[in-house]
Amino acid sequence: MKSTEPPPCPFEPIRPSELNRDATYYMAHAYNEALKAWKANEVPVGAIIEFEGAIIARAYNQVESLNDPTAHAEVLAITQATQIISDWRLNGATLYVTKEPCPMCSGATIMARLSKVVFAVPDPKMGCMGGAASVHELPRLNHQVEVSSGILEAECKAVLQAYFQRKRSGS
Amino acid sequence: MKSTEPPPCPFEPIRPSELNRDATYYMAHAYNEALKAWKANEVPVGAIIEFEGAIIARAYNQVESLNDPTAHAEVLAITQATQIISDWRLNGATLYVTKEPCPMCSGATIMARLSKVVFAVPDPKMGCMGGAASVHELPRLNHQVEVSSGILEAECKAVLQAYFQRKRSGS
Repeated sequence: MKSTEPPPCPFEPIRPSELNRDATYYMAHAYNEALKAWKANEVPVGAIIEFEGAIIARAYNQVESLNDPTAHAEVLAITQATQIISDWRLNGATLYVTKEPCPMCSGATIMARLSKVVFAVPDPKMGCMGGAASVHELPRLNHQVEVSSGILEAECKAVLQAYFQRKRSGS
Repeated sequence: MKSTEPPPCPFEPIRPSELNRDATYYMAHAYNEALKAWKANEVPVGAIIEFEGAIIARAYNQVESLNDPTAHAEVLAITQATQIISDWRLNGATLYVTKEPCPMCSGATIMARLSKVVFAVPDPKMGCMGGAASVHELPRLNHQVEVSSGILEAECKAVLQAYFQRKRSGS
């Protein structure tokens, strides 16, 4: 359903050292996924899932490309990961995503029983892991997800802001 | 990943009159989807999507069959519907579902821009359309979903309760 080309993307992928597999390393890979979304003319959000030190899923927002409102980076990454480990329960895995998950994706992290979610940019409008709401803190959930934020926040925010600025200006 | 057969299902599909396409008619079709879930050894939740008087999508919970925690009836029905009408925005469409949507599915109804959600059985533990939370009432959403409940509530609740009773007793 795309009618226009994406705006030119001025950002380059981050190449993190393979020797230091910390939160910044994993978020850098999510950031690179977000750039793929931009180049596909999608809102630039990217996600990866880490399990036992390996990246077992990587995805970017594909709502327009797949014509599917559920095709957010997080949902696509979760589905990929469950296929890889042959279990729909992702206990022990961590989702890294460049923006705070929306209501749907926040819920998906609970359904998938992820152990941890790390997001870069808070979203006070739509985020449901501390921003507009905290669905992971509903009192009667049978699974607890640990949430943290702020890793590569400036970098991931710059990509989102630049994308929307260019879309608005038509460049 | 199923290791057991489903418990025998004592419920019969409802055959609503085609002449009276009201909320009960549509929910009867969602109820019949829930029975299909039971027979597939899945938690019996069913959903349909109505658009301009036609049922354009019907689905049941397939988390175990598809080994995918995002494969709830609502998400599958939304994805189906968007493919049918070739637009990821389902404005004008109504989702009928036998149980109040979970956090993920409540969010998905907003992302999909459904006009209305009708559910049968409230879920005070996990429901996010008035039960445990109300994600459709977040103040800064750019889409409003109308929510109502109670259609065929007793029938849909009986199916859920019977399923869990039989699973617990191992029969």
